[in-house]
Amino acid sequence: MKPFMDADFLLSTDTAKKLYHEYAKNTPVLDYHCHLEPKEIAEDITFETLTQLWLGGDHYKWRIMRSNGVSEEYITGDAPDEEKFHAFVQALQKAVGNPMYHWCHLELQRYFDVYEPLTEENWKEVYEHCNKKLKDVSMSARNLIRKSNVTMVCTTDDPVDDLHFHEKIWADPTFTVQVLPAWRPDKAFALNSEGFCAYMDRLSQVSGVKVCDWKSYQEAMKARLDYFVEHRCLVTDHGLDVADYIPTTDEEADALLKRALKGEAVTEGEMLAFTSAALKFLGKEYKKRNMVMQLHCGARRENNRRIFEKVGPNGGIDCISESGFTVRMADLLNELDQEGALPKTILYSLNPNDDAIIGTMIGCFQGDGVHGKIQHGAAWWFNDHKPGMIKQMTSLASLGLLGNFVGMLTDSRSFVSYPRHEYFRRILCDLIGGWVENGEFPNDDRLLGSLIKDISYNNAVRYFGFDLETR
Amino acid sequence: MKPFMDADFLLSTDTAKKLYHEYAKNTPVLDYHCHLEPKEIAEDITFETLTQLWLGGDHYKWRIMRSNGVSEEYITGDAPDEEKFHAFVQALQKAVGNPMYHWCHLELQRYFDVYEPLTEENWKEVYEHCNKKLKDVSMSARNLIRKSNVTMVCTTDDPVDDLHFHEKIWADPTFTVQVLPAWRPDKAFALNSEGFCAYMDRLSQVSGVKVCDWKSYQEAMKARLDYFVEHRCLVTDHGLDVADYIPTTDEEADALLKRALKGEAVTEGEMLAFTSAALKFLGKEYKKRNMVMQLHCGARRENNRRIFEKVGPNGGIDCISESGFTVRMADLLNELDQEGALPKTILYSLNPNDDAIIGTMIGCFQGDGVHGKIQHGAAWWFNDHKPGMIKQMTSLASLGLLGNFVGMLTDSRSFVSYPRHEYFRRILCDLIGGWVENGEFPNDDRLLGSLIKDISYNNAVRYFGFDLETR
Amino acid sequence: MKPFMDADFLLSTDTAKKLYHEYAKNTPVLDYHCHLEPKEIAEDITFETLTQLWLGGDHYKWRIMRSNGVSEEYITGDAPDEEKFHAFVQALQKAVGNPMYHWCHLELQRYFDVYEPLTEENWKEVYEHCNKKLKDVSMSARNLIRKSNVTMVCTTDDPVDDLHFHEKIWADPTFTVQVLPAWRPDKAFALNSEGFCAYMDRLSQVSGVKVCDWKSYQEAMKARLDYFVEHRCLVTDHGLDVADYIPTTDEEADALLKRALKGEAVTEGEMLAFTSAALKFLGKEYKKRNMVMQLHCGARRENNRRIFEKVGPNGGIDCISESGFTVRMADLLNELDQEGALPKTILYSLNPNDDAIIGTMIGCFQGDGVHGKIQHGAAWWFNDHKPGMIKQMTSLASLGLLGNFVGMLTDSRSFVSYPRHEYFRRILCDLIGGWVENGEFPNDDRLLGSLIKDISYNNAVRYFGFDLETR
Repeated sequence: MKPFMDADFLLSTDTAKKLYHEYAKNTPVLDYHCHLEPKEIAEDITFETLTQLWLGGDHYKWRIMRSNGVSEEYITGDAPDEEKFHAFVQALQKAVGNPMYHWCHLELQRYFDVYEPLTEENWKEVYEHCNKKLKDVSMSARNLIRKSNVTMVCTTDDPVDDLHFHEKIWADPTFTVQVLPAWRPDKAFALNSEGFCAYMDRLSQVSGVKVCDWKSYQEAMKARLDYFVEHRCLVTDHGLDVADYIPTTDEEADALLKRALKGEAVTEGEMLAFTSAALKFLGKEYKKRNMVMQLHCGARRENNRRIFEKVGPNGGIDCISESGFTVRMADLLNELDQEGALPKTILYSLNPNDDAIIGTMIGCFQGDGVHGKIQHGAAWWFNDHKPGMIKQMTSLASLGLLGNFVGMLTDSRSFVSYPRHEYFRRILCDLIGGWVENGEFPNDDRLLGSLIKDISYNNAVRYFGFDLETR
Repeated sequence: MKPFMDADFLLSTDTAKKLYHEYAKNTPVLDYHCHLEPKEIAEDITFETLTQLWLGGDHYKWRIMRSNGVSEEYITGDAPDEEKFHAFVQALQKAVGNPMYHWCHLELQRYFDVYEPLTEENWKEVYEHCNKKLKDVSMSARNLIRKSNVTMVCTTDDPVDDLHFHEKIWADPTFTVQVLPAWRPDKAFALNSEGFCAYMDRLSQVSGVKVCDWKSYQEAMKARLDYFVEHRCLVTDHGLDVADYIPTTDEEADALLKRALKGEAVTEGEMLAFTSAALKFLGKEYKKRNMVMQLHCGARRENNRRIFEKVGPNGGIDCISESGFTVRMADLLNELDQEGALPKTILYSLNPNDDAIIGTMIGCFQGDGVHGKIQHGAAWWFNDHKPGMIKQMTSLASLGLLGNFVGMLTDSRSFVSYPRHEYFRRILCDLIGGWVENGEFPNDDRLLGSLIKDISYNNAVRYFGFDLETR
Repeated sequence: MKPFMDADFLLSTDTAKKLYHEYAKNTPVLDYHCHLEPKEIAEDITFETLTQLWLGGDHYKWRIMRSNGVSEEYITGDAPDEEKFHAFVQALQKAVGNPMYHWCHLELQRYFDVYEPLTEENWKEVYEHCNKKLKDVSMSARNLIRKSNVTMVCTTDDPVDDLHFHEKIWADPTFTVQVLPAWRPDKAFALNSEGFCAYMDRLSQVSGVKVCDWKSYQEAMKARLDYFVEHRCLVTDHGLDVADYIPTTDEEADALLKRALKGEAVTEGEMLAFTSAALKFLGKEYKKRNMVMQLHCGARRENNRRIFEKVGPNGGIDCISESGFTVRMADLLNELDQEGALPKTILYSLNPNDDAIIGTMIGCFQGDGVHGKIQHGAAWWFNDHKPGMIKQMTSLASLGLLGNFVGMLTDSRSFVSYPRHEYFRRILCDLIGGWVENGEFPNDDRLLGSLIKDISYNNAVRYFGFDLETR
């Protein structure tokens, strides 16, 4: 029996151990998509209790607690931190097979030097030990990032954001980890949302272009894109609850936008038309600026009104949609490709059933001198667990070139989520190591070392075009 | 090489063996959903031949025989029992990797002391041996249940049923296994079925409420629900070929019901509207009575007219639908939840592609002080096999709390299907044991013993609220 | 660690090794569905370079090169053969976990006696070695087939084809491998294609029946079917991008066909109606002639216009559709079955999510004295890899009788793709061997030997009704 989560955790063969310890372990971390708050990095925040660090904004943990019947008071409510933590530990005892079990213990090991399992017996001791440790300056937001061997972090930012926290971080010579903005224009797609008109006003202000039609909308967005590029942004991201596409003319987009600007509602079909037009427009602009287009598809959000009213957005009440990714996305890629305007693109679907569709669709649009120009993104959100990562990588390997994969990201709101990169790399090394042990791939150190380091880090650096020398 | 189906069958590690033999093996069986006939239990029926016991009503076996080219005469027709059995054994030789192979051999081992594989060579001997054994009083329906270490069985009953067989069984002090009714009102949803009006007449009679509109329909159903509760019913069940939901007003439901009562046809969309209204109404009533709502979704039934005409319903001509479970089910759960009226709910889909949707949807509606209030039901019907159970449990574990799972049920029409609980437990122990051996979960006897016993038995007792002390 | 791709490649247990070496390895190959050109067999073509042999028409390899960023010049363009080969080898280094890695090395081993991994270091040596070998007479098209232990090949042919290359091959006593035509009438379904009217003219000519309506269409098709049967055809095949069915009358089919013959466009729904009618008509005709109906469903073809314009059809720009196989296909099977007109049928879907639907649907239409009358076809195209084959066989085994499976086909355009049968057999033996080693199936030589040989070869001979004695 292997010891619980030791140095060889998840590494079941000698080759896997070798690959991990020699090639993966000390390779830096590049987190090209996360939800850290630039403000919190700029201010280098600290945490008083493990509850604040762990339960502060982590809807993954909230879901686990709710699954154990815990009431909101002890999750997102006003119960004392210690009681919240206890309730979480109680739930965690049932979480056999859940990535949360491993994430928590990796975090305890890497940041708190706690190596025993967290149980109903020792939870209080562990809690006090960690709280004490959190008072140390080494546990500030920036220091947590530093000690995680991170070279770069891309946050998630709104087009109207002035990015001044990013400016502040960049200007500070004491923090050499690159923190770059990423462009996430979801609000500019939400014609039907209550705040759309106010958002367009704000876009008009910050861009200096009065948005009154499709043409000015495009000008305003381009101005903001340029602003983001000036702030070193190379990554964009879209949340598409349903990833679908219908060819839409500029005239149609114009008419829809004008209706929305008048506060009129548009139908779901019209929403799709506008989204299609906006995605195509932005795709071209991304291509011009050598930015990567990320599409995160297939979430159905905010399903529980009661909890939403109590907790607000990102409250852990989302689920997977059965129709999140349609094959018509190929038409979008095709139209861009025909005009020579297809940017590097990463496709993610929350529905694991879409793996094979995505894996085969990307294969239709490769080339253009880029290794893996169109990518099947890493196992995302509800798929971010051991079987999910194995499934995504096995699918990608079976249908394309795993060796060109840009690999892992945290997608997290937490400063201690970097062990998810470690978790990913252990699984990657075990997968490839297993193939080697089984005679399915040559036991060739040079080749294997490149593969592991490329997928862990180098591919992402090259693919996004990050300049790691500037700081 | 492990011997064929010995005491350590499916247990591939030492930890798995320990978990099974120490915690799972002797834990009683609670079968909270099956299709046994109360009449047959009340009358304590016996069987003359293994053909009667095995092939009497088991459409799983019929399908396997048809797959081997066998004609209906030897399956559901009039061929002699021995020839039918021989034809079944011939088909079974091809059933490598099919759960039927294991079920049959577990049944031979546990009930007939036959430990060798059933082959073309020994089939006649085995047949005669078993037939002889079946003459023994120990092989009556009740004794088969008794020797299976069963504490409780929930049958599947129609709202108009008078439950007098249940009364009879309960009143008999010689049979201490609890046999409870379960509420399955599918016929009350089938507006378009030929027998709907006759069924409504019967409902009117037994409830004492003349059903003439939506209001009286609800009153009649509530009266029957109360009658079932008086008979200790705690479990309900719905078969939804397509699990979909659209908000529907009382007025709309009323209009549709009135049309159906006049014998008018309704469209598929209208069927969905009525089903939505009826499910929402019943959900609230279940909540009031602390009953569990089970939804079995995604079967496409009776696909082969030729066989249906020969064999009738439940003839083994059903398949999985590609659109069996939609994300709009979240709207039903949400609406009930908002009113504080969401009952404990178990979601099953016949389509294994729905695992991740269900696993994430249930996570949106947990809480309320119940451990695992909304459950992802055990691998059902066409998924009830080793890879299917591993898939369902891995999905549930990855997305929620496996430790709160209410576990296995037989869903069977047979008195010798209890080894399916054994089969499930072996797979469960192998899964969790494997994680422990691999260093993915602590080797903590207390914790592991609880997990295994809870999932095997205790969770179900607590979740449904069964009172096992009353007899 | 197992050596790289040695004699026991993919055989992880002693039983697996025994099954493969004793029962599978020397069993002949029957390739009941491929895309070899009869002309090339008739002319016994040869190859000058490994690039011609490997990259000539193989869109699988093209996709892998594009995924590595290679430009079309080095894939389908005019770059020198050697440079193309080098670019392919570079891409192959990234193809860990891709079946292409194994296919290439199996081909190098079996046809070129190259046993080392193909790398950036040795690619030139290997290339020259293979090119030299290709000059040998033993490497002609026919000799490649001969040395692959193939007894029969079914090509893919158009109803209007005169099959004279087939006649020529059959008439040649020096080539004893049977090469039979297969009927693939996709063009006769494509009402909306540009060439439809011209195609109908051609059909009129070769059949001697002027196609002017649904009745004459049927007569012409029957005449051609008879012609194919005269040429020993037993296999048919349909490519259905979406496998759906709606009951359609002869009158409707007649009207649609007449409109198409006038050059009028029909809608997608009307296309489905015509396809439904044509499939049902042909199904009956297949049944009368004891032909097998193959349905290949769920591809979305020619997604990249830019590449299509450069490369033409079959250019490696296809992907999986999310809605490729609907449960309404059961209605087609049911209607044919009711009339006693359901032919032996093999269902393939490109979408692996359809495995469970197909696996359960086929179970509704079995019987009729045929072992496995309705088959779940082998893992097809994008699923033709190790995890895909394991998934398909595990699904088939769980839901039906693996022992009746007609097994593997190459579906290939290459004369060196027969190692895919070897690959399949190794995976089959490892799967069943693993079950035996794990105590899940008896270690019974007679039974296991039959299973392996049947699935590898004998089932296909019996199922299709091939006459292997005639030559």
